[in-house]
Amino acid sequence: MATYQMGSCHAVPMTLFKSNRDKVVKAVLSSLQESLKFKAGSLQILLEGGKDKSLYNTDVDYVFRQESYFQYLFGVKEPGCYGILNIDVKTANTTTVLFLPRLPEDYETWMGALLTPGGFKTMYEVEEAYFVDELEAYLERTAPKLILTLSGTNSDSGLTMQPPEFTGKEKYVTNCDALYPIISECRVIKSAQEIEVLRYVAKVSSDAHIKVMQFIRPGRMEFEGESVFLHHAYAVGGCRHASYTCICGSGTNSSILHYGHAGAPNNRPIQDGELCLFDMGANYCGYAADITCTFPANGKFTEDQKFIYNAVLDARNAVMNTACDGVSWVSMHKLAGRVLLERLKAGGMLNGDVDDMLEAGVSGVFQPHGLGHLIGLDVHDVGGYLPNEPARPTESWLSRLRFARILKAGMYVTIEPGCYFIDRLMNNALANPEIRKYINVEMFERFRNFGGVRIEDDVLITKTGTENFAIVPRTVEEIEAAMAAK
Amino acid sequence: MATYQMGSCHAVPMTLFKSNRDKVVKAVLSSLQESLKFKAGSLQILLEGGKDKSLYNTDVDYVFRQESYFQYLFGVKEPGCYGILNIDVKTANTTTVLFLPRLPEDYETWMGALLTPGGFKTMYEVEEAYFVDELEAYLERTAPKLILTLSGTNSDSGLTMQPPEFTGKEKYVTNCDALYPIISECRVIKSAQEIEVLRYVAKVSSDAHIKVMQFIRPGRMEFEGESVFLHHAYAVGGCRHASYTCICGSGTNSSILHYGHAGAPNNRPIQDGELCLFDMGANYCGYAADITCTFPANGKFTEDQKFIYNAVLDARNAVMNTACDGVSWVSMHKLAGRVLLERLKAGGMLNGDVDDMLEAGVSGVFQPHGLGHLIGLDVHDVGGYLPNEPARPTESWLSRLRFARILKAGMYVTIEPGCYFIDRLMNNALANPEIRKYINVEMFERFRNFGGVRIEDDVLITKTGTENFAIVPRTVEEIEAAMAAK
Repeated sequence: MATYQMGSCHAVPMTLFKSNRDKVVKAVLSSLQESLKFKAGSLQILLEGGKDKSLYNTDVDYVFRQESYFQYLFGVKEPGCYGILNIDVKTANTTTVLFLPRLPEDYETWMGALLTPGGFKTMYEVEEAYFVDELEAYLERTAPKLILTLSGTNSDSGLTMQPPEFTGKEKYVTNCDALYPIISECRVIKSAQEIEVLRYVAKVSSDAHIKVMQFIRPGRMEFEGESVFLHHAYAVGGCRHASYTCICGSGTNSSILHYGHAGAPNNRPIQDGELCLFDMGANYCGYAADITCTFPANGKFTEDQKFIYNAVLDARNAVMNTACDGVSWVSMHKLAGRVLLERLKAGGMLNGDVDDMLEAGVSGVFQPHGLGHLIGLDVHDVGGYLPNEPARPTESWLSRLRFARILKAGMYVTIEPGCYFIDRLMNNALANPEIRKYINVEMFERFRNFGGVRIEDDVLITKTGTENFAIVPRTVEEIEAAMAAK
Repeated sequence: MATYQMGSCHAVPMTLFKSNRDKVVKAVLSSLQESLKFKAGSLQILLEGGKDKSLYNTDVDYVFRQESYFQYLFGVKEPGCYGILNIDVKTANTTTVLFLPRLPEDYETWMGALLTPGGFKTMYEVEEAYFVDELEAYLERTAPKLILTLSGTNSDSGLTMQPPEFTGKEKYVTNCDALYPIISECRVIKSAQEIEVLRYVAKVSSDAHIKVMQFIRPGRMEFEGESVFLHHAYAVGGCRHASYTCICGSGTNSSILHYGHAGAPNNRPIQDGELCLFDMGANYCGYAADITCTFPANGKFTEDQKFIYNAVLDARNAVMNTACDGVSWVSMHKLAGRVLLERLKAGGMLNGDVDDMLEAGVSGVFQPHGLGHLIGLDVHDVGGYLPNEPARPTESWLSRLRFARILKAGMYVTIEPGCYFIDRLMNNALANPEIRKYINVEMFERFRNFGGVRIEDDVLITKTGTENFAIVPRTVEEIEAAMAAK
């Protein structure tokens, strides 16, 4: 049985990708049944894999990472490939064909044994494999009546994937629009095999988070924590890549939602008495984790830190205990906001009716981001705003949501409520009488340099509830115990 | 004094980049003196910095790394900038101006405090700073008679950098060809401040290599060694990036020159009795290290391993002791080849006259790559085949050289002789009577699965010799002692 496996880490069977292909073929046939004008003959799905990317015009390449739709269907780790699903529309029988680059012989000296079609067939368990320069002949031989190619716009980035170019394309009827929403929807509901990979990468990331918590103490640099995480994820978990840039904020940096980028590179000494908000996730075989832990630098929460942390934890627990198949994600975002506001009110930071506050957008002062997002091969996974699903809400405190769907069993999402004290949002709130009237200004101001708290779990939606794959200490007591155990 | 500094690691003063700018302005004026048609007025050098790159069409960005020419002149760590050197050709007085992206206010919530022109002036010690959308007005105000922009082809990758686009470009006389060879030549000779950064990143990389040697033992995975290296380089050395993909080959993988890429991802358990060839270099403030250590997995060299290792070490020592200002790099490559062949002959693997063998290309059977390369901001640094320098040699065993220049004091190069047993090259050699006649076939065949040895140092060329910044155990005795000390 062919697998993807780093060392003795989780073995991902190539049948995972076969199942993905079967699912896509079924979805394509059922969705196109009416519009397909032909009742016999070859319908082909043609995808182009990712290519090597160089650092500017130098000869240094980024370590190659496969494009996610191509990974979903084929699990191919090499750059420069094409893949075809050749579907007999009458029988639904499908042949999977991979095309690999034909490299000059002397590449062997530099890159290792050259890939061959035979090797590719075995490694990826596909029926046929050829060199890319044989793609045109393959198409001539199989004479597809329609070729579905992939193009579409990512609803998180706004960036559009261009349809693939290939020799002879002009000789065929192609459609580049139909496929994107179909595969995207397939990707939303995770298969049993995908769930095992996601469970694995979440566990590796969880363990790495615990290592970091036990490593951090006042005086350490934020980036040291990042490095500890990456090292555990790779050396122990076989995860060469992180799923996104590590966010390792201490003190007020913990309130910068996407801290850690090149302009703010986790380069601050962590101080006694501060909170650390570390948002980090590994990547294995293309599949992502995305976990945030917030903990006190010195291992003991202050009373103020407990207050905010527990408010967020209550919001998280409420969602975790309520979400399940059939529940609206927007209602979960509202639930988290409501619980957060209730706790802040109970602690004396807010006054007034919580429903009125919610309506006025007070929860957005403390948590300007959505409750969470779909996750899978992409950390912000596709499927958020598909044509037949609810559109992005327009209310300012909901518009940041990365999806607004009814939850279904098999969806995999992050649940990540937060509470931050961000200067600009605090000032805006105080300048707006419709918000200010709910705020106990003196107490609010006391938290101005507090930073923020986020608790982010990776959660499978089931028929009856949720299953959390992030296995990290979550209560104040658990965190303090874990940090004391270093 | 403004600096680039991660934690308490090496502080890179912004005056380093000021010196680079002064050097470039001087070189530009002296090289263009005759062709410049104007004797008074503003000559401007305009460069565009690197931009953020996303992973396909997702909202995940690669961690930004600055483009090397822009880094050389400005040391700016943020994406999306422009830089201008505004030169008064009469006085040579130069004003440095940076242009930074104007981000929407609400980016502050996600990215941290927004950049301001005032902040940029302080952070990078430049005379003026504006937003990018003010670039057009700046040009109108300063009315350059000529704008030099940057475009050129990298001689290692063959990739061409396109000249920058900017609003209003069509209103000015621009030249995009003259600058590339001038700055490239400036980059070849390192300044005292650059040398300190290079010394630092080579030391960090050296220490990380020693950690790896002491970590490796039979049963460990190759990628665990990579992870140990990256962790030390980052957590201790503040180096967030490697200068290139880590090459961690064991056994026969040690003969794959660029092993470690996504298709061959350092994913093999290291076996007792094998050699490990680990080629890894960190990056600090854009500056590169590139060091290779070859060592026995179990800590003790076999006799065969000693034979090949010492042959390579002798070649390395010969070059290290001979190279200096005024010496031809091609002659150093030949010297390394000659010493290697002499030692292989002395050990019984080759028969015949070493000069004849060299002429016949026998050294290329064992070392198919060049002796080394310029190194600096790029690991394969620019300046290799500039218009007024020796062209790439045509002989097959010299054509892989990345430069063919006369060494000058202040050049910084790798010296990296190697000896590999690569199936394809071995078969080619045995099939070619003009090569085979020098080979003791029986002994040669005994080494077929030996793998390879490379010893790579990062070396400053001085007036009288070399200074090696790679501080790692090099003799058999030193390596065995270092590994025993774990």
